[in-house]
Amino acid sequence: MSTAPQTALEKGALVGSGKFLLRDVSLPAAVLHERPLLNNISWMQGFAERHGARLAPHGKTTMTPRLFHRQLEAGAWGITLATATQCVAAFEHGVTRLLMANQLVGAANMSLVADLIERGAEFYCLVDGVENARALNTFFAQRGLRLQVMIELGVEGGRCGIRNDVELDTLLAALAELPALSLTGIEGYEGIIGGQDLIAGVRAYADRLIDTVRRLKRRNALALPKPLITASGSKWFDLIAEAFDLADLRDECTPLLRPGCYVVHDHKLYADAMEDVKTRHPDLQGELMPALEVFAHVQSLPEPGLAIIALGKRDIGCDPDLPMPLRWYSEGKPPRDVRDWTVRNLMDQHLYLSVPAKTDLAVGDVLSFGTSHPCLTFDKWRQVLLVDDALNVVETLATRF
Amino acid sequence: MSTAPQTALEKGALVGSGKFLLRDVSLPAAVLHERPLLNNISWMQGFAERHGARLAPHGKTTMTPRLFHRQLEAGAWGITLATATQCVAAFEHGVTRLLMANQLVGAANMSLVADLIERGAEFYCLVDGVENARALNTFFAQRGLRLQVMIELGVEGGRCGIRNDVELDTLLAALAELPALSLTGIEGYEGIIGGQDLIAGVRAYADRLIDTVRRLKRRNALALPKPLITASGSKWFDLIAEAFDLADLRDECTPLLRPGCYVVHDHKLYADAMEDVKTRHPDLQGELMPALEVFAHVQSLPEPGLAIIALGKRDIGCDPDLPMPLRWYSEGKPPRDVRDWTVRNLMDQHLYLSVPAKTDLAVGDVLSFGTSHPCLTFDKWRQVLLVDDALNVVETLATRF
Repeated sequence: MSTAPQTALEKGALVGSGKFLLRDVSLPAAVLHERPLLNNISWMQGFAERHGARLAPHGKTTMTPRLFHRQLEAGAWGITLATATQCVAAFEHGVTRLLMANQLVGAANMSLVADLIERGAEFYCLVDGVENARALNTFFAQRGLRLQVMIELGVEGGRCGIRNDVELDTLLAALAELPALSLTGIEGYEGIIGGQDLIAGVRAYADRLIDTVRRLKRRNALALPKPLITASGSKWFDLIAEAFDLADLRDECTPLLRPGCYVVHDHKLYADAMEDVKTRHPDLQGELMPALEVFAHVQSLPEPGLAIIALGKRDIGCDPDLPMPLRWYSEGKPPRDVRDWTVRNLMDQHLYLSVPAKTDLAVGDVLSFGTSHPCLTFDKWRQVLLVDDALNVVETLATRF
Repeated sequence: MSTAPQTALEKGALVGSGKFLLRDVSLPAAVLHERPLLNNISWMQGFAERHGARLAPHGKTTMTPRLFHRQLEAGAWGITLATATQCVAAFEHGVTRLLMANQLVGAANMSLVADLIERGAEFYCLVDGVENARALNTFFAQRGLRLQVMIELGVEGGRCGIRNDVELDTLLAALAELPALSLTGIEGYEGIIGGQDLIAGVRAYADRLIDTVRRLKRRNALALPKPLITASGSKWFDLIAEAFDLADLRDECTPLLRPGCYVVHDHKLYADAMEDVKTRHPDLQGELMPALEVFAHVQSLPEPGLAIIALGKRDIGCDPDLPMPLRWYSEGKPPRDVRDWTVRNLMDQHLYLSVPAKTDLAVGDVLSFGTSHPCLTFDKWRQVLLVDDALNVVETLATRF
């Protein structure tokens, strides 16, 4: 019933036969710089390995299958995803080991996952309640399948996940009676920890995950010889990795880190978090580098000191911070640093940029913008452009949001 | 270079052979209710006609070609769009009269538009500066084409558009020397008007548009016998329509209204605006009705009074207001009104909903949510589901963001 043609010209498309970003691309366009991208994939893989952990990058950030491939080629254990349809998208692009870091809810979503398992996927999802566990058991038993689940440990005032040991025991007792479910590990997300001392809170939470997986092993509650234990977004990954490493889990478990945003990093939220990581680890070698930018034209210069940029909320995220101008490209001149210019406002299709009252900025010039938190920029694009240092487009990467 | 398969299973997809939204669809899903949708298309068309204006609905809101077709079938003059790639998407789906309510900037974007004109599109875009006008003239002259442009009238402190008559005269003098450009009308957007008395401000702005188009006619500066005059989003459309009607423009101009959000309306921003329209027009017959909702599952009930819903910023807009819970669907029970429940927080893939501490809400139940401002919900979806009153899916509508 869809009327979309199969070969659509998307925004950010290459126009004509050239490959130069500033001339041959319909702007605005979302751009990945190849060198920092490859650095990040390699750096985080190495970080995990040095801490005796495997990497299951969260794919929800980019939903870009070609990046999943690069992450797997670098040594990732599998790809983490947030929803059943995201898992379908990853599997259709050859990702066979899928950690859905969420509860699986609804018959249609269960059906999608059952199809994946039948087609050979190694799939894991979370449970945090008896009701959902029973619904899953009924569904997967009817399909003649077993579903691998992990118990999510949550915190009071947090998001999903069981809150305490009473709930843990209740859930374990229920799972013991549900033959279509295999309990394969323990999951947590430290990003929802609050309180005065976040570092102590994250460390205590990691210890609770470790303690729980060990207790479950002792009780023979886990179906895998080396059950999964997983946590970590892109902000506190060092603390989680250290805790797993200190506990020396690698012989008894499969410790998994699953940061997502690290792959393209950012210009503020995660840039600041990286500074904190470096402060905590003065000897750290290398670091994450921002790889995602959005390029756009100056559309109008209606008043001194104001430029309207052809870039809006449809093209770039503004949560938690407005986009940040980075560089100004004017034909025949070297790029100029404009990080001291400020964004006044962002509308659906327009950005208001404060610029110096006297400037030779011209309509048609190009500006690059960085973001704070990359997830809500990626999902604005059906394709992103991989570029080299000379801003030539190396590859067009389709997204699957 | 894209690796996306041609027949992707998107989020919100029908799963299996049934068509019942609450059972056969992978939730979350974006849903259009057919009855209010058809009401809105018909109502705004009638409103424009009664005021002697044509309707050029802004397509950027939905970027859903099947809705463009319905708007055109109801009598719309053409479709308004915001960018060159949006125009390409509309044209590829059979929309031949395109009003790009923006400046056309960048060689790649000009090339896309030149291709459309060569393929038969009736295309209009805006100019507000000599520099851009000259660049357009050079490009389209080289292609052997004429480009139809309209002058955008802006306001001090506003967005694009010339600010005053001095700038108007400068631009007119330049356009007179640019043979590849045809000046075809005057454009404005009243949504950027500020000040104490917005109603008086919008009326004065409409009068300035009318006065300007008449002056240009007298000076023979316009290439069309009935030049275009256009303004109006979905908030102040009544004031713009009245001003055009009072000026009795229809014999000398083509007055165009171009609201976009009206087609699905909303549950807050435009719902409030509609109340204001009704207050200004106590005799108004009929009204706009909300047609867009997002349906999602209860994913977890981790604490009394808190439900985590499988719905996030990846699925629903939260600008300017958080999503609003509307109805609760539990199998075997009639839908219940939950508009008094409140959203605490929205993350990328999760929504925190405050619910009564004692409730029989269950994991797997379905909730529908409304939005404030529909644009930033539409662009989260590659397809939206058109449903009838019984919540059966009537059609899957592809979007082209």
